[in-house]
Amino acid sequence: MTYCVAIAAKDGLVFCSDSRTNAGPDILSTYSKMHTYDLGSDRMIVVLSAGNLATSQAVISQIEGDMEDEEAESLLSCNKMVEVANYVSRVSREQQAAASDSTAESDVDTSVNFIVGGQIEGNKPSIYMIYSAGNFISVSEETRYLQIGESKYGKPILDRILREDTSLEDAARCALVSMDSTMRANATVGPPVEVLVYENDTFESDHYIKLTEEDSYLTTLRRAWSAAIKQAFLDLPQFEWEKRSASLRPVLETSAADERRRD
Amino acid sequence: MTYCVAIAAKDGLVFCSDSRTNAGPDILSTYSKMHTYDLGSDRMIVVLSAGNLATSQAVISQIEGDMEDEEAESLLSCNKMVEVANYVSRVSREQQAAASDSTAESDVDTSVNFIVGGQIEGNKPSIYMIYSAGNFISVSEETRYLQIGESKYGKPILDRILREDTSLEDAARCALVSMDSTMRANATVGPPVEVLVYENDTFESDHYIKLTEEDSYLTTLRRAWSAAIKQAFLDLPQFEWEKRSASLRPVLETSAADERRRD
Repeated sequence: MTYCVAIAAKDGLVFCSDSRTNAGPDILSTYSKMHTYDLGSDRMIVVLSAGNLATSQAVISQIEGDMEDEEAESLLSCNKMVEVANYVSRVSREQQAAASDSTAESDVDTSVNFIVGGQIEGNKPSIYMIYSAGNFISVSEETRYLQIGESKYGKPILDRILREDTSLEDAARCALVSMDSTMRANATVGPPVEVLVYENDTFESDHYIKLTEEDSYLTTLRRAWSAAIKQAFLDLPQFEWEKRSASLRPVLETSAADERRRD
Repeated sequence: MTYCVAIAAKDGLVFCSDSRTNAGPDILSTYSKMHTYDLGSDRMIVVLSAGNLATSQAVISQIEGDMEDEEAESLLSCNKMVEVANYVSRVSREQQAAASDSTAESDVDTSVNFIVGGQIEGNKPSIYMIYSAGNFISVSEETRYLQIGESKYGKPILDRILREDTSLEDAARCALVSMDSTMRANATVGPPVEVLVYENDTFESDHYIKLTEEDSYLTTLRRAWSAAIKQAFLDLPQFEWEKRSASLRPVLETSAADERRRD
């Protein structure tokens, strides 16, 4: 399994991915799922992949091969990010069809899905999620992030934190906390964690970090987050019955009609 | 869908459930999934249900019917919580088989699963999760909570907060935050939220609250949690490049070998 998330913040884009792949519990390996294309001064494109590793490698291989062919449609020939999404969708459908044909006699799931994001000069930065069927959706003012893979564990923190004015760095930290929550909950998602931060209109990958399990930043972030969350619990409101705990428990309730109590 | 969670804390048990049921997006209704049995001075048992509503109602109906028959095995005749789990498992398998037979010509999923917890005099309190297949697992020193239904969204906060010495009230607040995260993320989980807190060796349901969407406690808890989480973000460590943000960006990196940067 995999967990990848991409966030469109006010000042740029954030991409975050884990690196664990598994085909059964005893076939674990480590592969980067973040493919970064710094393609000169007018475009920067990132592809995050999830699903069957052989198929996603075939897709990435074709994407990279197409760029060497000046006649072919490629990341270099697209004029807008939506064209990039269309192009990656086509390559994904072709490679899934080929993989499905060549594995027809086995029962393997050869499907893949992708997040593609970045910016091409003359256009705003954007992010698309490409379903395995080939259709795709983009981020919007209301939906500032897209996820692929094991997405549920890390969703609540994104919903609670990301707002229109969230800074690029807070968005990156939010992606890391979301990733950390997922890694703690699910054994098929694991380090190293890659984070790429793109500042609007720079047309290059501005900040990239790769965090191993023992990385001091990841360790510090985890500790700080755990401590902060525990502190946050202390600030939550008390239940009615706690407020009464100093005195002996009253036999009759005088408030909170919907609370039932027997002593 | 459904979300229910039960926690075994040091001083007692916490049960929490939502109330939304759905059969397709336009068939939403509200049913309690928490069934509380205060059965005299020697036992208190709670059953939380998930899955097909008709089947779970049939199971609950049989559980309640069996208690009226002095000859039958029932919640009253069991001597330990593991016997209760065994009994509920048997009733669940019987009712699922009956439902499966009677709906054989349609494609409906009639499966159900349950959490049963409580205490019978002479034994420690315990909690069991009964899979739809009928097998079951209990809480342990290492695994202090069990979930049924839409369990992924609410899992990270349970993993981060629950410890051996977590107070009963913090465990209840943790269940509520876990439920709130799930309700925000998934439209098939919804209020009212029921919370039952059982203090060890009291053999009665000590505190019960039912929180509607507009409930002032739930609203206060949500606001306090959101504020605390935002505050927690301010305490997270900065990235290397933020620390340098006051000066002009350096062309060459002098630290953080694993950070890539182009200016």
